Amino acid sequence: MGNYEGTHGRVTLAEVAKLSGVSLPTVSKVLNGRADVSRATRAKVERLLEVHGYRRRPRTAPWPGLVELVFHELDSIWAMELVKGVEQVARENRATVVLTVSGTRHTPGPEWLEGVLQRRPLGVVLVFSTLPQDVKRQLRSAAIPFVVVDPAGDPDPDVPSVGSANWAGGLAATRHLTALNHKRVAIITGPKDMLCSRARLDGYRSALAMAALDVDPRLIRFGDFHVQGGFEHAMSLLDEPDRPTAIFAGSDLQALGVLEAARLKGLRVPQDLSVVGYDDVPLAQWSSPPLTTVHQPLRQMAEEASRMLFNQDESGKGAQRIELATHLVERQSTALPGKS
Amino acid sequence: MGNYEGTHGRVTLAEVAKLSGVSLPTVSKVLNGRADVSRATRAKVERLLEVHGYRRRPRTAPWPGLVELVFHELDSIWAMELVKGVEQVARENRATVVLTVSGTRHTPGPEWLEGVLQRRPLGVVLVFSTLPQDVKRQLRSAAIPFVVVDPAGDPDPDVPSVGSANWAGGLAATRHLTALNHKRVAIITGPKDMLCSRARLDGYRSALAMAALDVDPRLIRFGDFHVQGGFEHAMSLLDEPDRPTAIFAGSDLQALGVLEAARLKGLRVPQDLSVVGYDDVPLAQWSSPPLTTVHQPLRQMAEEASRMLFNQDESGKGAQRIELATHLVERQSTALPGKS
Repeated sequence: MGNYEGTHGRVTLAEVAKLSGVSLPTVSKVLNGRADVSRATRAKVERLLEVHGYRRRPRTAPWPGLVELVFHELDSIWAMELVKGVEQVARENRATVVLTVSGTRHTPGPEWLEGVLQRRPLGVVLVFSTLPQDVKRQLRSAAIPFVVVDPAGDPDPDVPSVGSANWAGGLAATRHLTALNHKRVAIITGPKDMLCSRARLDGYRSALAMAALDVDPRLIRFGDFHVQGGFEHAMSLLDEPDRPTAIFAGSDLQALGVLEAARLKGLRVPQDLSVVGYDDVPLAQWSSPPLTTVHQPLRQMAEEASRMLFNQDESGKGAQRIELATHLVERQSTALPGKS
Repeated sequence: MGNYEGTHGRVTLAEVAKLSGVSLPTVSKVLNGRADVSRATRAKVERLLEVHGYRRRPRTAPWPGLVELVFHELDSIWAMELVKGVEQVARENRATVVLTVSGTRHTPGPEWLEGVLQRRPLGVVLVFSTLPQDVKRQLRSAAIPFVVVDPAGDPDPDVPSVGSANWAGGLAATRHLTALNHKRVAIITGPKDMLCSRARLDGYRSALAMAALDVDPRLIRFGDFHVQGGFEHAMSLLDEPDRPTAIFAGSDLQALGVLEAARLKGLRVPQDLSVVGYDDVPLAQWSSPPLTTVHQPLRQMAEEASRMLFNQDESGKGAQRIELATHLVERQSTALPGKS
């Protein structure tokens, strides 16, 4: 029980127990995320712990030192890049990576919260845009630092997070195509409800404006960031009477779908159609032809998030947002427009 | 200290301490993998623990329950499939996945062994072909069950392992091509020092023999299982005077290299050249054209290995080898040979 202390030294656990009208062991169970406490009791104790600024003392001699990485799915083409980044920083700090899969795109599930309070990792990297208040409150009570890696570009203002420059990425992709003298440039961006999709689209619009080109709404499509969405939109774009000579595909997977559509239409890439991806995951170099794409530094984003865990000040104050730069990687899927 | 017992109840830890001439806490430190014990003392205590058949009692109430997955590299295209399989079974058993990266293709590093003895996972899945004796001995003393997932096809006879049917996979890939009436079929298999490469090659030879075709040694190449190896060998194969009309590429990554070589040579796949991959990792469906390939059930292999951990009998006896079936998945990279 000596493992706790108030941030301001004003209240003891025994006092919290007394105020809540429960026993000291029950308060301890709440702090440890044990399941054998009623929901009402847990809520009451947590509220008191929060009101009195109670925080668990961080572990000084981590043993075994765990850094937890939480996803809602492992299928994402991003997942391995993020794992590599967290693993690198964990190893530098003599810690080990715990990988958990839980919840939806928006939040980890309740069973995760219970588990992490038991595991007590040195810190948690979450690949989610927004976190529910009770998740944040419980992690804070337990003095488990957490940072969000947020490729979706929709940061929660009171949580430290790492993202990347989506608008600048969309701008760079499109400027590359207008600089090659493409006049009919289409975009297949991501889902409408993701801010990163909108940021990339706005970068595209600005690049067209800078090249004094009009934005043709028929050339703007919202995909799903997967191969199939890229394929379907490309098939439809290539059927347009005045078809685009270049497509900014919004993600590398969508770009692969565009390559397949071009093959079925008998168009050569890049001679007949230029294609730009987004992300620069490993498969971007392996496609045929290798993709010109926007490098999103996923691995560095995960490294940065992990370093923030180890450097976070104990009070949990100082939530900050870091955006890492994106840049264009030129490979072989883009060229001057062919004569048609 | 009550956490130990002899398998046969014949010796106590105190007796081991006495026999080794060290204190009881020192014996405990050895069992817990602590670093503050001299190498000589550790060796002496371990030998005595082994001689007397001493085994740590398995954890009955795992808290927090960890299943550890150990790789030598995360870059492998296989890695995520294996993670998914282990995660699935861990979750079914209310356990969490720890991911560690250590060592070489052949063995995890010494720092890993020290770490795992501290973490005391419920079990360990190792993606290595052979394990050094001292690793096996220490895991057994600590009663940490372990299973090897072995896509390389080179099992250690005294360790439970899960592999897949490489010879049958090579046979199926090649028979598919001979059934399409290809007469000049090349193979780019993996490195010479990996048994899975040789098994796939032997399957290729048998399929040619069954089709009454001669084996042309100029059409047999040993690659590196990566894109570049596939690309270079394909460039050279396609320069042969009587070039192959079909290439069994030995891995999906090598198949991507073959696709790029075909593009540069102006050959259409599958009209001018048929290509078969191996592995059926997700990117096999995303290439252009989508790859006909041999499905290696990586995810199920990892699931099977993880289930073996939870079902292993405590004595560590009963090492077994399981080989899961492979099968051909027909997509769009193969066809009848074109007229040339």
